[in-house]
Amino acid sequence: MSETPLDLTLDAPALTAQLVDFPSVSGTEKPLADAVEEALRALPHLTVDRFGNNVVARTHLGRAERVVLAGHLDTVPIADNVPSRLDENGVLWGCGSCDMKSGVAVQLRIAATVPEPNRDLTFVFYDNEEVAAELNGLKHVSEAHPDWLTADFAVLLESSDGEVEGGCQGTLRVILRTKGERSHSARAWMGSNAIHSAAPILAKLAAYEPRKPVIDGLEFHEGLNAVRIEGGVANNVIPDACTVVVNFRYAPDRSEEQALAYVKEFFADCDIEEFVVDDHTGGALPGLSHPAAAAFMAAVGGEARPKFGWTDVSRFSALGVPAVNYGPGNPLLAHKRDERVEITRISQTEERLRSWLTA
Amino acid sequence: MSETPLDLTLDAPALTAQLVDFPSVSGTEKPLADAVEEALRALPHLTVDRFGNNVVARTHLGRAERVVLAGHLDTVPIADNVPSRLDENGVLWGCGSCDMKSGVAVQLRIAATVPEPNRDLTFVFYDNEEVAAELNGLKHVSEAHPDWLTADFAVLLESSDGEVEGGCQGTLRVILRTKGERSHSARAWMGSNAIHSAAPILAKLAAYEPRKPVIDGLEFHEGLNAVRIEGGVANNVIPDACTVVVNFRYAPDRSEEQALAYVKEFFADCDIEEFVVDDHTGGALPGLSHPAAAAFMAAVGGEARPKFGWTDVSRFSALGVPAVNYGPGNPLLAHKRDERVEITRISQTEERLRSWLTA
Repeated sequence: MSETPLDLTLDAPALTAQLVDFPSVSGTEKPLADAVEEALRALPHLTVDRFGNNVVARTHLGRAERVVLAGHLDTVPIADNVPSRLDENGVLWGCGSCDMKSGVAVQLRIAATVPEPNRDLTFVFYDNEEVAAELNGLKHVSEAHPDWLTADFAVLLESSDGEVEGGCQGTLRVILRTKGERSHSARAWMGSNAIHSAAPILAKLAAYEPRKPVIDGLEFHEGLNAVRIEGGVANNVIPDACTVVVNFRYAPDRSEEQALAYVKEFFADCDIEEFVVDDHTGGALPGLSHPAAAAFMAAVGGEARPKFGWTDVSRFSALGVPAVNYGPGNPLLAHKRDERVEITRISQTEERLRSWLTA
Repeated sequence: MSETPLDLTLDAPALTAQLVDFPSVSGTEKPLADAVEEALRALPHLTVDRFGNNVVARTHLGRAERVVLAGHLDTVPIADNVPSRLDENGVLWGCGSCDMKSGVAVQLRIAATVPEPNRDLTFVFYDNEEVAAELNGLKHVSEAHPDWLTADFAVLLESSDGEVEGGCQGTLRVILRTKGERSHSARAWMGSNAIHSAAPILAKLAAYEPRKPVIDGLEFHEGLNAVRIEGGVANNVIPDACTVVVNFRYAPDRSEEQALAYVKEFFADCDIEEFVVDDHTGGALPGLSHPAAAAFMAAVGGEARPKFGWTDVSRFSALGVPAVNYGPGNPLLAHKRDERVEITRISQTEERLRSWLTA
């Protein structure tokens, strides 16, 4: 039994606050996964399965369609923004409030309060979404127990500002190493400076102009950025190594192969010693023309927008399950020190999903 | 009485081996300082003073000129290269063999074997040269007992490959921080990439052309280099900070103020958020036109070369004592695992100094 059980009788905003106050930075999700599992096992209309720190709960009502509601339990590192704080304007502040404990709270509320949905439901809570693809809990579940994820349609409650977001961009991370030769910094001409060799890489990145293709009526927006740089041996040594980690976010009309070829070509004249693909996950086309997606759109209303960030809709897409992002957080506030969410948006998301699932 | 007294009747190469086998990594010089003090106190023509682990011994013959022979007792950390080993080619291997126990051996031999030099002599043995400037024993002596160092000329027996090296270059280390604003890397346009902001800094460094001024007949060679770079928050975050550590090695015709102004001006258009001076020590002019230096040059022969690295000749220069580097080691071998010295070079240095001081 976990020390701080989750109270699913709280409304979704209050449950979000409880979840923010229950730290679960990537790699440390076990206590929260335990608490989620315990809360779900108390619900007699659900069967509950566990794999690692991933929890899957399902109804078995024999409905014509099965729908997944999915969310990740982990957050980026806390930045002086826990515990949560509700301000006088109805805004809840704190690490994960937006990305995506408000979405998880909505999942848990639907699980607790809709025992007889009009579609069979599968709730998926998983770990390590904010770190490397190899660690991603949804990936692990999809490989070890793909049957747990069988469905006609999936809603990922990633922050999308209460609007439906279709598809997602791919993400490729490469490590570029430049070459050099050590020498004493008082005799720099005896060596070759690997940090200086990174100058053309940074210059090209600084001058990069993003492509913004329109796909299925949605305008995507690519991005190519250095997310880390590191070089140096000692304060009096000309360094023989410098590493630039580059992240390419690309629209889903590029395949993984095309995305990689683009980045290789982009840096072709930069005299790179070593080019390593560190992480790569393709995007997902919006798929809004699928009947299940269209029915969902009609029920929750609004107009679909493109999803810029990579999300696990791509994994559902790869499993043949059409998927959209639909969550209460504002994605522009994700990973920020001043991360926050409007509590009316949390309640609205919960109510719209409930209407769709009980109509 | 120390447990392993130094035997000043050995020749300089054998004494070098004894010194290498007497470990004295920076911070642990006391036993060796004790042994040096004890050996010098046994010589009736010298007075001996001690301050911390620094030992100063002087003749008082009323000569027209006074000359300092100086060397540091410490070494960089041992790297599986103690005890010493003399190979069949007359090369002595071991930690400190080059930097600079061969020089210290020559100092001790001159102290022991030249009781009536033609110039009054001051022998200085000091600690902590290989670590931070604040710990440097010569600095401590120069502040606490500047009179102990009064002289017309100084020879620092730092490794210079048996040639006279004049002056030394200054060294300035600055930390440059660029600005940025965090955002998710999937929506890079919401933030500002601090690593990309470092592009102009690296571009300027890569395009830098060193100045090579000729001073007192010696061609110096400046250098401006990034020695470290670091930036990044997480693999999916546009970073709000990037730090470049730059080392400027400058010829001694620039003052410290001029060197700093040069670097500030060099990066003036690089949009730097913060510019921090992390370390700064001025250079030393060669001073080879001084009569004492000229006489020394005439006596030991060869052609003077510029010293690129910073050495303690700069401290003598600041005290108004012209100084040169003249030691048996090859400076390119200093601090290396395979540090070594040719024993004929040690004997040659000893003989040339003896000739100069007894002519």
